[in-house]
Amino acid sequence: MSVTTATTQDDLRRLNLARILRFVHVSGPVSRSDLVGATGMNRSTIGVLVNELAEAGLVAEVAGAAGGVGRPSLVAEPVPSGALVLACEVKVEATETALVGLGGTVFTRRTDTHAADGIDPAEAVEVIAQAAEALLGEATGTLVGLAVSIPGVIDPDDGQVLVAPNLGWRDVPLGTLLVDRMTVPGQRVPQIAVGNDADLGALAEHVRGSGRGVRSLIYLSGEVGIGGGIVLDGSLMTGLGGFGGEVGHMVVNPGGLLCRCGTRGCWETEIGRDAVLRAAGLSDEVGDVLQVVRAAESGNVKAREGLRHVGEWLGLGLGNLVNIFNPEVIVLGGHLRYLLPQVSEAVLGRVDQTLAAMRDDVQLVTPALEGDSTLLGAAERAFAPLLSDPLGVLQMTAAREAS
Amino acid sequence: MSVTTATTQDDLRRLNLARILRFVHVSGPVSRSDLVGATGMNRSTIGVLVNELAEAGLVAEVAGAAGGVGRPSLVAEPVPSGALVLACEVKVEATETALVGLGGTVFTRRTDTHAADGIDPAEAVEVIAQAAEALLGEATGTLVGLAVSIPGVIDPDDGQVLVAPNLGWRDVPLGTLLVDRMTVPGQRVPQIAVGNDADLGALAEHVRGSGRGVRSLIYLSGEVGIGGGIVLDGSLMTGLGGFGGEVGHMVVNPGGLLCRCGTRGCWETEIGRDAVLRAAGLSDEVGDVLQVVRAAESGNVKAREGLRHVGEWLGLGLGNLVNIFNPEVIVLGGHLRYLLPQVSEAVLGRVDQTLAAMRDDVQLVTPALEGDSTLLGAAERAFAPLLSDPLGVLQMTAAREAS
Repeated sequence: MSVTTATTQDDLRRLNLARILRFVHVSGPVSRSDLVGATGMNRSTIGVLVNELAEAGLVAEVAGAAGGVGRPSLVAEPVPSGALVLACEVKVEATETALVGLGGTVFTRRTDTHAADGIDPAEAVEVIAQAAEALLGEATGTLVGLAVSIPGVIDPDDGQVLVAPNLGWRDVPLGTLLVDRMTVPGQRVPQIAVGNDADLGALAEHVRGSGRGVRSLIYLSGEVGIGGGIVLDGSLMTGLGGFGGEVGHMVVNPGGLLCRCGTRGCWETEIGRDAVLRAAGLSDEVGDVLQVVRAAESGNVKAREGLRHVGEWLGLGLGNLVNIFNPEVIVLGGHLRYLLPQVSEAVLGRVDQTLAAMRDDVQLVTPALEGDSTLLGAAERAFAPLLSDPLGVLQMTAAREAS
Repeated sequence: MSVTTATTQDDLRRLNLARILRFVHVSGPVSRSDLVGATGMNRSTIGVLVNELAEAGLVAEVAGAAGGVGRPSLVAEPVPSGALVLACEVKVEATETALVGLGGTVFTRRTDTHAADGIDPAEAVEVIAQAAEALLGEATGTLVGLAVSIPGVIDPDDGQVLVAPNLGWRDVPLGTLLVDRMTVPGQRVPQIAVGNDADLGALAEHVRGSGRGVRSLIYLSGEVGIGGGIVLDGSLMTGLGGFGGEVGHMVVNPGGLLCRCGTRGCWETEIGRDAVLRAAGLSDEVGDVLQVVRAAESGNVKAREGLRHVGEWLGLGLGNLVNIFNPEVIVLGGHLRYLLPQVSEAVLGRVDQTLAAMRDDVQLVTPALEGDSTLLGAAERAFAPLLSDPLGVLQMTAAREAS
C-alpha cells in the first residue's frame, strides 16, 4: 500500500476535500460531529471545506433533526446529481448498465440480454455505448466516470482483458475500444476503467454492503465461473500485476473435470453454474442455479443431493481460503447466495475442520447488495478519481466538455 | 495497515530516529547521500539524528572510501554490540538459538537436539533459557529482545501457541512461560515475542534475503509440516487474528491421506517431510529430505520417481498460490530448497498452467539465507521494538537492568 502524504498546502487541501467527500459519499447524511470524528480535522476547517464542496455542487448542507434544545445542527449530504457515473457489468448472458449518482443513488438502469452464443468484444462495446447514450439521454448532471466489469483477468493499467474464459475473450483491448467508441464528437467522455467482476463486488460489499467497515473480506462471484475479490486491511489485494484473487482456479480436485482455463479440477469446475446444474441432474432442463434451488425446495431428491454435493466442494474451498487468509467476512455472491442457505450444513461441516480460532473469526454471509454487488462496485470504481481529487476532476470534466 | 503519523515534535523525532536506525540496520554501512535518498530528510537533520544514535552506541560514523578528489565522506554503520537479541527456532528435531547483533551480525549460536519423542513445552522453555544463558555468558552489549519461532499457529497478542500439530502442542501459553522462566533475579529480561516459523522466514527473506525490497513474497517453510508466510505490499499478511498463511492446510487432494490437523488431503500430506520419504520409498531408511535428494542424484530410480511425484504436488499448490496472490517471489524454504532443483520441471509444468501474466510475474527461488531464514527472522522480530523507538527501548532496558 502506498501512503499518500501531503507535501504542500495545495496537496493537503486536496487530500482533506477528498476525505470529506468520501465520507459524505459513503456515510451521508452526516453531522459536523461525525465529520470531526471521521477525519480528525477541527470544525472550522471542516466548515471551509464543506463550503467548497457545496459550491462545487457535490455536497448540500441541510438542517438535521433537532436534538434536544437549541437549533438543529447542520447535516452534510451528497448531491446525487452533482456527479454521475455509468456502471456496466458484462456477464455471459447479459450486460447490466446503471446511471449512478454521488452517494450511490441509482437513477436508472437497464439490462441488455445477449444472444445465446454470448457476446463478442465489438458487440459488447456497442451495447455499452448504446446503453450509456440511452441512460444519459434524459439525465442532468456531470458525468465523471464510466467503469465496466468483466468476468476475467484485467490489466489495470490499460483496461486490457487478458482472458475472460467464460466470454471466450482473450487479449481484448477493451479500455482502448471503449475510449475510441466514446469519443464521438459532442459526446461527453468520462474517465473509463475496466475491472474484474469479483474485485468490484468486493469493493461494493466493503463500502456499502455486508462487509462495511471490516478489515478483511473475500467476495466470491458465482456466475458461470467463480471469481474472488479480496480486501485486506481495507484495501483491495491486487497482486503484482493486478491479477490476484483468481480463487476459482485454485485446484481442489486434481482428478476432476477439465476447466475452461485448461487445468483439471479447478474449484470452478465443482461449484460454477454448470457444475451445480450437472450435480442436480438438471443440465438439460434448467438454465440457472435459482431453478435448481427451487427444485430442491419442492422436493426434487436428485436436486437436493446435487446441492449437498456442491456444498461439500464449496465448503472445502472456503476452508482453504480461511486457512490462507484468516478473513473476517466471506461474502458468497452471484448464484452462491442462493446456495448458502441450502448447503450451510455441508459447508460448515468443512469449514469446521479449520483451526477453531480462524473458524470463530469468520462470518459467511450473502451480499447485502444481493445481485448488484458487482454493478455497484463498478460505480464505486468509476467514482474513485473524483473521490481522490474532487475539484480537480470537476475542472478536468468541465474543460473536456468545453473543448 | 495502520499508518503511523507524528502528531508532536517528540513523535516526529522518534519516528525519524527509527527510520534512520532501520535503514542502517538493514542496509549499512550507508553514506549521508544514501540516508537522504532513503528518508527524504535533509543532511543537517540526518546529521543531528545520526549523532544521537551514535551517542546511544547504536550507530558508528566512519570514513568511507575516498571517491575521487577531496575528503572521504562519512559512512554510518550499525554497531553490532550496541543492541543484541536472542533468536530461537524450535523445530521438531532440535532447537536453534543465536545471539544476533544490530545489523544482523550473528555472534554465536547453538543447536540443542531433542529426544526422539520430540519436546514438550516445559522442556522447550528450559532449553531456550539455558541456551540464552550460555550464549549471553560471555557477551557484552545490551540485550533488547528475545523472539522464538514455533511451527504452529500463534496468537500474536500474548504468544499463546494455539496449535503446533507437529510438536503435538495445543493451547500452550509459551509467551507467559518464557516470561516467568526468564524473570530469575539478576537476569536481564528482554522483551519476548513468539512467532510462526514461516512468517519469520518470510520476514527475514524480505529484509535480507531472496526477496529483498520486493512488494510481495510468499515464503514456504518445509519442515515436518508446510507453513506459509506472506508479505503483501511490504508488510506481513496476518489475517484477522494473526493466524493467516496456513497454506500447508490448503486441501489439494480430497481423496488423499489424513493430515495431522484432522483434514484429508492437505498440501502438507503431499509435500511435507514424511510425504517425500514415503514417495521415495525410503521412510525406513533415511530421516531427511536431503538424503532422498542425494539418493536420487546417485541414481536411485524409486527416489527419482518419488521426487517427480512430489514435484507435481508442489507445482499444483504453487499454481494455486500464484492464482490467488499473483506474487512477485515465492521462496521455497526448509527442505523445499533441496527439492526445487530436482523437481523444477514438474513444478514449472504445473505453474505454466496458470495465467501467462501471473506466471511471468513470479520468481520461484531458494532462500538466500539457506536454512537460517526462520532463525534470522526471529532476530528481526526481536529487533522490531528497538527499530520502532530506538532511544525509548534503550531507556526501558536500562531502567530494567538497574531495578
